[in-house]
Amino acid sequence: MSLLVVGSMAFDSVKTPFGEREGAIGGSATYFSVSASYFTEVRLVAIVGSDFPQSELDFLAERSVDLAGLERSEGETFKWKGEYGFDLNTARTLDTQLNVFQDFRPQVPDAFSESEYVFLANIDPELQASVVEQVKSPRLVACDTMNFWIEGKRDELVKTFGMVDMVVINEGEVRELAGESNVLKASRKIIEMGPSTLVVKQGEYGALLIQEDSVFSAPGLLLEDIYDPTGAGDTFAGGFMGYLSSEEDMSDASLRRAVIFGSVMASFNVESFSYDRLRVLTQTEIETRYRQFSDLASFDRI
Amino acid sequence: MSLLVVGSMAFDSVKTPFGEREGAIGGSATYFSVSASYFTEVRLVAIVGSDFPQSELDFLAERSVDLAGLERSEGETFKWKGEYGFDLNTARTLDTQLNVFQDFRPQVPDAFSESEYVFLANIDPELQASVVEQVKSPRLVACDTMNFWIEGKRDELVKTFGMVDMVVINEGEVRELAGESNVLKASRKIIEMGPSTLVVKQGEYGALLIQEDSVFSAPGLLLEDIYDPTGAGDTFAGGFMGYLSSEEDMSDASLRRAVIFGSVMASFNVESFSYDRLRVLTQTEIETRYRQFSDLASFDRI
Repeated sequence: MSLLVVGSMAFDSVKTPFGEREGAIGGSATYFSVSASYFTEVRLVAIVGSDFPQSELDFLAERSVDLAGLERSEGETFKWKGEYGFDLNTARTLDTQLNVFQDFRPQVPDAFSESEYVFLANIDPELQASVVEQVKSPRLVACDTMNFWIEGKRDELVKTFGMVDMVVINEGEVRELAGESNVLKASRKIIEMGPSTLVVKQGEYGALLIQEDSVFSAPGLLLEDIYDPTGAGDTFAGGFMGYLSSEEDMSDASLRRAVIFGSVMASFNVESFSYDRLRVLTQTEIETRYRQFSDLASFDRI
Repeated sequence: MSLLVVGSMAFDSVKTPFGEREGAIGGSATYFSVSASYFTEVRLVAIVGSDFPQSELDFLAERSVDLAGLERSEGETFKWKGEYGFDLNTARTLDTQLNVFQDFRPQVPDAFSESEYVFLANIDPELQASVVEQVKSPRLVACDTMNFWIEGKRDELVKTFGMVDMVVINEGEVRELAGESNVLKASRKIIEMGPSTLVVKQGEYGALLIQEDSVFSAPGLLLEDIYDPTGAGDTFAGGFMGYLSSEEDMSDASLRRAVIFGSVMASFNVESFSYDRLRVLTQTEIETRYRQFSDLASFDRI
């Protein structure tokens, strides 16, 4: 029932073919928390500067996000600036200012140390490992990463993968880390590093859930209007982990439903800049969209 | 019940990261016919040169492919040479020798003119149109095309699309023809050209079935060993059209099953060079793989 997330909180300036937004609230832990909050209570470990708006923290608290692990530091919050071209699959980073995030050393409060579900969003793999060491006996630890760490801290990343149960990662990163173009072979190489389960995010093509002896392919919802893909992966992870921790069921069927709930949340998120759409979702909207995924992918058995 | 195909027959020389094969039997109509022959009788309209082996024609005849529309011309058969890199999604053409195919003017024999199901494989759109004019009152006409015609004979292609019920086409070609990066918007633009149904082939990501008011997303089977993707699209079309014409049911549920049968046949085809794997398939293998697709994509409704 208890879900802990460690990651970044940020101001994002984003330009897409459909518009732009300066200094919107972003960050992996923020997207994750808001998304997961539709399923369960969330415990947040992150850092913000003195410029982070109190109103936003109030919003998170209202959504049952426990901010006891949030560090508020003198200085400026992490800032990211990027743009997307028409394919919307890859962002081009224009500017990164780490600011207070540079000295982030995640401290898991005592009250959070018995969390059962843990998500390590995309931060330095050594920090991810330090979080695992601070949590007592979690039922499930999952982590994300990115090409920056695959290229710059490969050994540390492989060590962290050896400490987690699940990796949630982009398809291109699976191939890059494994040095193997075939996604199934590449996934098996990553499973050999430690995690028993791999969730492979395929952008508009959906997601794969890969375990040693089973594969599930979730469709991507075909959306006519994708305004801003920023945070889609973290929103997916929030829905996925949020659902899993609310169900306390790690069966294959439950994991598959969790992948669809993750996809549902991500599909809402890309419909607006920042997480504007996630602020105002209803349970009915979430369930209706889950059924859209069912209709999209269903066909008769023979 | 009667399925007519018009397309090419060829010798292919193919190099992939997993090996190479010189002068193997290929061509869109050949792949289509062999694939469809697992579901229904096929009527073939194509041209070969005097160098085409009789043993191969005997093989097709044994598989209930009616060769009454096959023209045998003095000269050499169409030859294609290409190679694939590690991504296996796009072939690089090294050499094309049209030979007898250059003067191909498809003649539909009288005995074939009342065919109910018609597939126009990837040939000059003007020739595709001439075939439609030679068939009396088909229930379903579907066609394929490629970037070569989109770029070189756009007007003729749009005219042909106005004469058919269904287009079976690669995702990149949908985007290129519609001049629109969003695949759903691009598909709707093509539907406005005439066809009521679009089947969008997404390579390893599966396929989409798009109609005015519905979308179906079929998964791609994750294969560890893909030896040669040549002919995968035509093999898909053969399974798809073969199943549809055997069922005589154009409901959404039937079309969805047809997309899966097409995917099943394509998944076998890429496991070998030429259509070696398709020569020796059994009904049980086809049904078993269909069930693999079901297992791959299924998740609970809520």
